[in-house]
Amino acid sequence: MKDGQNIAELMADLGVRARGAARALATAPAASKAAALDTAADRILAQADTILAANARDMEFGREKGLSDAMLDRLELTPDRLAGIAAGLRAVAAQPDPVGQVIAEWDQPSGLHIRRVRTPLGVIGVIYESRPNVTVDAGALCVKSGNAVILRGGSESLHSSAALAECLVHGLTAHGLPADAVQMVPTRDRAAVAELLRMTEFVDVIVPRGGKGLVGLVQREARVPVFAHLEGICHIYIDGDADPGIVSKIVVNAKTRRTGICGAVECLLVDRAYFDRHGADFLGDLVAAGVEVRADGALLGVPGTVQAGPEDFGREFLDSIVAATLVDGVEGAIAHIGRYGSDHTDCILTANDAAAQTFFDRVDSAIVMRNASTQFADGGEFGMGAEIGIATGKLHARGPVGAEQLTSFKYLVDGAGSIRA
Amino acid sequence: MKDGQNIAELMADLGVRARGAARALATAPAASKAAALDTAADRILAQADTILAANARDMEFGREKGLSDAMLDRLELTPDRLAGIAAGLRAVAAQPDPVGQVIAEWDQPSGLHIRRVRTPLGVIGVIYESRPNVTVDAGALCVKSGNAVILRGGSESLHSSAALAECLVHGLTAHGLPADAVQMVPTRDRAAVAELLRMTEFVDVIVPRGGKGLVGLVQREARVPVFAHLEGICHIYIDGDADPGIVSKIVVNAKTRRTGICGAVECLLVDRAYFDRHGADFLGDLVAAGVEVRADGALLGVPGTVQAGPEDFGREFLDSIVAATLVDGVEGAIAHIGRYGSDHTDCILTANDAAAQTFFDRVDSAIVMRNASTQFADGGEFGMGAEIGIATGKLHARGPVGAEQLTSFKYLVDGAGSIRA
Repeated sequence: MKDGQNIAELMADLGVRARGAARALATAPAASKAAALDTAADRILAQADTILAANARDMEFGREKGLSDAMLDRLELTPDRLAGIAAGLRAVAAQPDPVGQVIAEWDQPSGLHIRRVRTPLGVIGVIYESRPNVTVDAGALCVKSGNAVILRGGSESLHSSAALAECLVHGLTAHGLPADAVQMVPTRDRAAVAELLRMTEFVDVIVPRGGKGLVGLVQREARVPVFAHLEGICHIYIDGDADPGIVSKIVVNAKTRRTGICGAVECLLVDRAYFDRHGADFLGDLVAAGVEVRADGALLGVPGTVQAGPEDFGREFLDSIVAATLVDGVEGAIAHIGRYGSDHTDCILTANDAAAQTFFDRVDSAIVMRNASTQFADGGEFGMGAEIGIATGKLHARGPVGAEQLTSFKYLVDGAGSIRA
Repeated sequence: MKDGQNIAELMADLGVRARGAARALATAPAASKAAALDTAADRILAQADTILAANARDMEFGREKGLSDAMLDRLELTPDRLAGIAAGLRAVAAQPDPVGQVIAEWDQPSGLHIRRVRTPLGVIGVIYESRPNVTVDAGALCVKSGNAVILRGGSESLHSSAALAECLVHGLTAHGLPADAVQMVPTRDRAAVAELLRMTEFVDVIVPRGGKGLVGLVQREARVPVFAHLEGICHIYIDGDADPGIVSKIVVNAKTRRTGICGAVECLLVDRAYFDRHGADFLGDLVAAGVEVRADGALLGVPGTVQAGPEDFGREFLDSIVAATLVDGVEGAIAHIGRYGSDHTDCILTANDAAAQTFFDRVDSAIVMRNASTQFADGGEFGMGAEIGIATGKLHARGPVGAEQLTSFKYLVDGAGSIRA
């Protein structure tokens, strides 16, 4: 921050620069944007020592601040993790460029030819927590989609994120693109977040990526539109007609592959008909895998399970814990999910097409699955190259937010001296 | 309003009913929704006397309130206008049903089959001014797209709108659909609008349809997301390479066909190169058609034009008035539109493909036209059957808002016992 400049002035300055950069980036050639991302990936590898040194400063600050081991783990960068970040950049670079794509095209009886084409949104504000890799994922997806981005990382990752953002800026300028297309908020002052959330003149959409606290703050305070990203309270419903051969492997994978991601399953809904026919050995498999299974009713008969309380349903554990309860068929599952779900990802295990169709029709979550692990709820697994988060709202973006979801569209109309009767 | 019920309770009651109706309508068969709209059209014709009597009460109230002739004209219903409203309903009924449409479908290397399918948004709040036909247009588009709607018409049109809404409800119940899918706010109290704008629990999106005052109020007060619909400050740029044979007929049509719609042109940008070659006789044609042409610079040499003031640029006249100024080529036009436009509809007249491409690339309005009248900015003319307005924002809906724009989507993912590595 320059001497005498207050937060509002600082942020307005970022905003003006972002608007200018967005205008230039909106019409930049696809090849330049892709090359900028590839060059940024090279730069990350070339500058690894500098980035790791910046990260060491953040880690020290984090330890002094008393961050938990889990938080420190999210914050830490290693040569392997940098290689992964660079590979992610190249994957985004290799994706098709969404800007200018013709989404639909038709002729009208009036003689008009109408095209609906993708356009950038403009300026995107991304607010995230400790993981510095989000700097690169979010920056890359915004550049790819022709948007300027203002990044506000967690205060713990300030130096790491700044070092990574410098690589993106290096890539941009190396290919004649505006440096201001990727800007970091250069202060730990929390007032900068409040300012960013209200800069409707300079910011077109806010993408919050982080826990419930961050997202709640954003939804309360923002005047800029938000791509809502709430909790991932993911359910798996084990239908009476589920194939017992797949139940255990799916629920164990959905819970234990990674417990800290939003696609991890948090609640198992067991059809009484399944339980009557096959029991619930899969709960024992979860216990054996080290999961605390909080069950109720007859499910408590499975050795190792513990009593669930009412607060365990509708809860995002993000930990090695899962809730389990009996329900009456697909209707019971739909009712439970309607009451406790978070519109993120919910899954039915069944060999019965009619039950699956009912579940697909009536569960109104961003992602509805059949016979698959909820851990597939991920932009990469959907073929998007990367994601900036999983949107749980219904407006504009829903589900994994990749470059395409960061675009708008406009109509291009060709006439031939056409007038309206 | 029931005795003792306050506005907040009244609105919450509408909200709860709308949510319930939305759940039922979301999975209603396409044929039932279409049949409900056709039956509503029949009902409007059968109940014409009742509707016209209700409208007579509103007209009397409007005259007592001292509404302008233009406002009274918008408010008035006639047998002809009722026939037009019924025909509009049948046109929406005949459109393809958007709900359940597969927007995209692909396989992933993991074996997952992913479909992206259209879903209703949920509950839509529509706030509009005096024209009672909006009751039917908005109601029909919401029903078609599987959404429940809460309609808040202008207080002047209360009886007319209620009579028309009754026809929609009649159509719904005749085909087993929930009556509460179409509800009118049953009070003239303006506090009901404030309540509707803040009912995030019950309303998914607000569509304001009306003048600058209404839309500004909505954008300031709303906590529910809004499909922004700002002014239509439409420009036509007459390029140096425009075909002089089409200029006059297009600008006269764009201004005079109907002056009160948002697609009417409000400002003409004349390339100096065009003026030097061909003059500006088309301004004389506008004067001859009764238009007040507010020009500046050399354009004032055209007989009948009057001096434009700075306030005439960036202004939505919605009247038989147009501004005109000279610009330097397509760059000058783009700069003027960037400064004064409202992101609605802007048009270039040119035979030069390169100039047209520059204009298409760089003018970031919802609708960008070439060699056509801006009066084509209309859902019907785009093939959407009807529209609820023209959105000028960039999120979710942009341009004419028809049934398809009132939908969201979800991902349906089919696995085969698939787990993530």
